[in-house]
Amino acid sequence: MAESAPPGYHRAMTARPIRIIGIDPGLQRTGWGVVEARGNAFAFVASGTVRSQPADALAVRLCALHDGLMAVIEALGPAEAAVESTFVNRDGAATLKLGQARGVAVLAAARSGLGVAEYAPNAVKKAVTGVGHADKVQIRAMVGMLLPKAEFDSDDAADALAIAICHAHHRGRAELAARIASAAK
Amino acid sequence: MAESAPPGYHRAMTARPIRIIGIDPGLQRTGWGVVEARGNAFAFVASGTVRSQPADALAVRLCALHDGLMAVIEALGPAEAAVESTFVNRDGAATLKLGQARGVAVLAAARSGLGVAEYAPNAVKKAVTGVGHADKVQIRAMVGMLLPKAEFDSDDAADALAIAICHAHHRGRAELAARIASAAK
Repeated sequence: MAESAPPGYHRAMTARPIRIIGIDPGLQRTGWGVVEARGNAFAFVASGTVRSQPADALAVRLCALHDGLMAVIEALGPAEAAVESTFVNRDGAATLKLGQARGVAVLAAARSGLGVAEYAPNAVKKAVTGVGHADKVQIRAMVGMLLPKAEFDSDDAADALAIAICHAHHRGRAELAARIASAAK
Repeated sequence: MAESAPPGYHRAMTARPIRIIGIDPGLQRTGWGVVEARGNAFAFVASGTVRSQPADALAVRLCALHDGLMAVIEALGPAEAAVESTFVNRDGAATLKLGQARGVAVLAAARSGLGVAEYAPNAVKKAVTGVGHADKVQIRAMVGMLLPKAEFDSDDAADALAIAICHAHHRGRAELAARIASAAK
């Protein structure tokens, strides 16, 4: 999927701080990471992992993911959300599970009034490491560099922070461009 | 996935009428069908199709499906839901879309307090036509025979009714077995 901006984010003309939640969905573990962005600068707020029990029925697992994310969104009040355009592999059963978790995660954000931006995996890698083909270890290290106070309890939480950073990066540029355009009028 | 009964459905000892919603999820069209079951008998209540616009963002589309299903559940008050265990094909992008729609549909039912049963496609076909390899035309014809008053606006709605019939069939048998066991005490 192509990169896309959430509805209306280009209208943000001033560099007010804004909280962004990055989400890395998965049926077993959904990572989340919240950063606060102001223009091109951003800082760590919190991150974590919502888990569901493989022994539970699908409906119970999806409710656990939904409730976990809703609790995070209510507690931390992000204004925008970002998810990675999921990598689709040949394992149909795994893709279906991922899709179900992703649908519930996007719904939780959208139903909470958040715009939901999507970024291709290589855009996320590039925003964090400068290149589009970084591995998990490099991403984790760079997230730690960019957000010195960050703590994450899983690779999924680190990936979620990387997604949030990617969105902060892109929206910061768009905001700057909008301010320049506005000043030139 | 294996067939599964919703939590507690084996405790229904009396043949009270109960409404069942069958759901055939899809990102573009999600079919739904509600039947009222009493023991092994069942009757048509309503069916329809919830649609989302391909031009809209994923978040908007998932909200449309969720809101549409929630409106149906609130208006018709089903007590149990059933979905087909999705056929997984080699087209990863299609499977991901289907998964996202399916996750949202299962969540809507579960969050409304409904047990969600899952049935393999051949179980649904067998419940409706007597054989496990019927095609869409046969299923549509048999749904029309079993529910003479049924009206459906899409193949997805007909499939959803077939799924509801399958659940009515299985729960009717389980209820009968429970009553026999209870009477033998």
